[in-house]
Amino acid sequence: MSTFNAYTEFLRLWGTVDDLEHGSAVLQWDQETYMPSQGAAARGKILATLAGIHHDKMVAAELSDAIAAAQEEVAPDSVEAAQVRTAKIEVERELKIPAKLAMDLAEAESAGLVAWQQARAEADFSSFQTELELLVQLNRDKAAALADGGSAYDAMLNLYEAGTTEAELVPMFAELRNVLAPLMREVAEQAPVDESPAQGYFDPAAQQQFCKMIAAKMGYDFDGGRLDKTTHPFCTTFGHGDIRITWRWQESDIRPAMYGVMHEAGHGLYEQGLPAGWARSPLWKASGLGMHESQSRMWENMVGRSEPFWQWAMPHFQKAFPEKAGLRVAQMFPALNTCKPSLIRVEADEATYNLHVAVRFEIERQLFAGSVTVRDLPELWDQTYQDLLGVRAQSVSDGVLQDIHWAMGAFGYFPTYSIGNLVCAQLFEQASADLGDLDGSLARGDFQPLLQWLRTHVHQHGRRFSTKELVEKATGKPLSALPLLRHLTSLAERVYGVSASLQGS
Amino acid sequence: MSTFNAYTEFLRLWGTVDDLEHGSAVLQWDQETYMPSQGAAARGKILATLAGIHHDKMVAAELSDAIAAAQEEVAPDSVEAAQVRTAKIEVERELKIPAKLAMDLAEAESAGLVAWQQARAEADFSSFQTELELLVQLNRDKAAALADGGSAYDAMLNLYEAGTTEAELVPMFAELRNVLAPLMREVAEQAPVDESPAQGYFDPAAQQQFCKMIAAKMGYDFDGGRLDKTTHPFCTTFGHGDIRITWRWQESDIRPAMYGVMHEAGHGLYEQGLPAGWARSPLWKASGLGMHESQSRMWENMVGRSEPFWQWAMPHFQKAFPEKAGLRVAQMFPALNTCKPSLIRVEADEATYNLHVAVRFEIERQLFAGSVTVRDLPELWDQTYQDLLGVRAQSVSDGVLQDIHWAMGAFGYFPTYSIGNLVCAQLFEQASADLGDLDGSLARGDFQPLLQWLRTHVHQHGRRFSTKELVEKATGKPLSALPLLRHLTSLAERVYGVSASLQGS
Repeated sequence: MSTFNAYTEFLRLWGTVDDLEHGSAVLQWDQETYMPSQGAAARGKILATLAGIHHDKMVAAELSDAIAAAQEEVAPDSVEAAQVRTAKIEVERELKIPAKLAMDLAEAESAGLVAWQQARAEADFSSFQTELELLVQLNRDKAAALADGGSAYDAMLNLYEAGTTEAELVPMFAELRNVLAPLMREVAEQAPVDESPAQGYFDPAAQQQFCKMIAAKMGYDFDGGRLDKTTHPFCTTFGHGDIRITWRWQESDIRPAMYGVMHEAGHGLYEQGLPAGWARSPLWKASGLGMHESQSRMWENMVGRSEPFWQWAMPHFQKAFPEKAGLRVAQMFPALNTCKPSLIRVEADEATYNLHVAVRFEIERQLFAGSVTVRDLPELWDQTYQDLLGVRAQSVSDGVLQDIHWAMGAFGYFPTYSIGNLVCAQLFEQASADLGDLDGSLARGDFQPLLQWLRTHVHQHGRRFSTKELVEKATGKPLSALPLLRHLTSLAERVYGVSASLQGS
Repeated sequence: MSTFNAYTEFLRLWGTVDDLEHGSAVLQWDQETYMPSQGAAARGKILATLAGIHHDKMVAAELSDAIAAAQEEVAPDSVEAAQVRTAKIEVERELKIPAKLAMDLAEAESAGLVAWQQARAEADFSSFQTELELLVQLNRDKAAALADGGSAYDAMLNLYEAGTTEAELVPMFAELRNVLAPLMREVAEQAPVDESPAQGYFDPAAQQQFCKMIAAKMGYDFDGGRLDKTTHPFCTTFGHGDIRITWRWQESDIRPAMYGVMHEAGHGLYEQGLPAGWARSPLWKASGLGMHESQSRMWENMVGRSEPFWQWAMPHFQKAFPEKAGLRVAQMFPALNTCKPSLIRVEADEATYNLHVAVRFEIERQLFAGSVTVRDLPELWDQTYQDLLGVRAQSVSDGVLQDIHWAMGAFGYFPTYSIGNLVCAQLFEQASADLGDLDGSLARGDFQPLLQWLRTHVHQHGRRFSTKELVEKATGKPLSALPLLRHLTSLAERVYGVSASLQGS
């Protein structure tokens, strides 16, 4: 048992699977950044070919055999055991989906995207209904295949955040709703905040320089990364030493660029912090999408929208944008921390965001339980928004058709956004306590203490532990909504002067 | 025979092979353009994995069987027959190389590149000698495997330009040498040409705009292409609708940027002119490297350095670079058509370039005949340069170590440069005759007649015919050195006032 022949062979095989995944990521990044318009068809074929080969390698007996043999070699609770276990879960998941279903899904997603785009443009749900019905049906089949008799919706949740269950999300969202829905109603009655400190004219080149300076200061390594322009910002990983982020900007508002870059750089720092020695192995990955989102939100919200951060950032901001000379941190702070009920998730603030997610969670679980049909969704959507946020869309395009996720067959994905917010707040509270003077270091522009804390408690573990396990290890407590609610109610009090009770929540 | 089941399956399989090749091309392009420095190791692994899978798919019985079955279905002399035949040649070539040899070659090339870079930097041939000896030995093994008892060097030549033989190259280079070597000696005695019209200060952004304007005017389609910056310019193809070129510039000289872009756009026009319906099939490729080079050289040299072209281009040039106001075409023309013996191939002018290639051809054939050893190369190199160009390098870095080709295991590649020059001149002569007023259209900035001629006689045929066949079809004559020699001697006469006799050559 002291030699690792099978384990080595397993890692070798996994490396090729990993290479195919990251090779495709390069092709996708290029598609979003630099590909000329006429290249789309050829690119689609190449990506489909690589996906097919990736699937073949995943379900090959060679890999399953190597995993089984490696399992015999590794010591219990070792890193090696975690590598093998993680690979096994992924391979079994791939094996559980019949080839016919995988092909039907790929086709339905492709057709779904096209129909959704058109339906959204024309504000006509009926032209997407058939495609969505098929997507729901096929994903219920997929969930059933993955669930092995267990909960179908849990199987979907687990695709994005291992170990997540509907049973634990129900009270979590209830707690969020119970505090945030009344709080938002109260906030809506207050005078609106002056957002002009974050508005004006911001030269794009100056925005780029300012945002790159902040990302570099956070610790994002541009020798192993890049910043490029895309329609929708994202972070993508091509392997150790090549983790890229993208951005967009508005000339009239600094927030989309600045918080977009801090958000994506937060994702990037996580990936750059994965242990180099694990590259091309199963564990060289984030523990889940929720944990990933916690990292991006932490830099964007906890750091980037805080007063201490702005004590450091303000002189740099004013140097980059001289028209902002004389602006005080106390004026900037509220402009960055507004909250108001809105119709569109991606434009929502930190607090209402979770209510947007709660709407989707509510609907998804009913869809997977079979207690609602696709035909009912537009009305159910509007009613749930009315209940939770007090707003109602005038058009399905701002209602049930606003998100791309379902059109891509991504059910069970939305909850990871709120999980991420919870994790973020809980980790940040703990980091503050552990570090003693986190605010002070942020005010000095010294982000290393926070980054090192995250490296230690999150990044260096890759996928070895689940998000929930990492949170518990780092904070000594199970994941809870309280830190997030403390943070959000405190913001509402400081910005709008409203108070909410957290007792009993 | 009226259904094409096997043929369709053959094309499907080939499509995946093609996707792997073009997917790798995207990864390589990114490596040269945007990849952060720390990404190199991960990128190397991904590319190696894709190369391995490509090889596996090429030698798979599935593909060979499909080719054999398709061969039964296709009509003789049809396009389909050419598709199958071309694929068969490639597959057989891949099958002939034993796996062990392929691995040894990949390793030797990798080690060779490193050793060459160091040897070149240190001007020390001895530190590359062992690696080069191994590369020569392995490539002779490879050539023997490919040659099936035929000529080893011919097998290498055929890798880059199908149907090329040493026996036909010997008189070709003799003819070039016999005219050009004495001509260059005579030119060397003339007063140097004033190159200042092409020199000065050229703002990089203005260079980019000027060069892109020319490329677009030539017909290079930027909706299916791009121009990016790299250390060494190249053209690369990712599929129909995505054919990219790269460039570099010097602030003090317009020539590297302008002729680099025209050269690469010439390659790009060839690829953009391949028949869209053949995409992802064996024939969707240039007929060979020589033909490819003929297209790039035609736009660079025949068009871009000509007086008619400059009658159109001069006002645009002067608008982009106002300091050039007042410059006349008659002053510009000699500055773009200098020729003088030099040590470095990549810096050589149109005329001496072929002598640089002749040196390498002479040495390669002796290496493959076993009549010289690697140890003899530095002295043989210098002596051959002395004989053909009348110059001798002071350092091996400017001598035998100047090119990357042998370090990459590319033997038999150099002759395609001169083949390209011959083809270029012969096609351009014919196009001039066919089109009647080619000079007139160039002077009006109307490049469509020439492009359409090339589309008809070259581009639309893809790899269906060999370069030699295409030349003969287009011009009614076998490939000959005379058109090139007519062009070069005419230039020498106009720029330097020297004359050469072509009689008997």
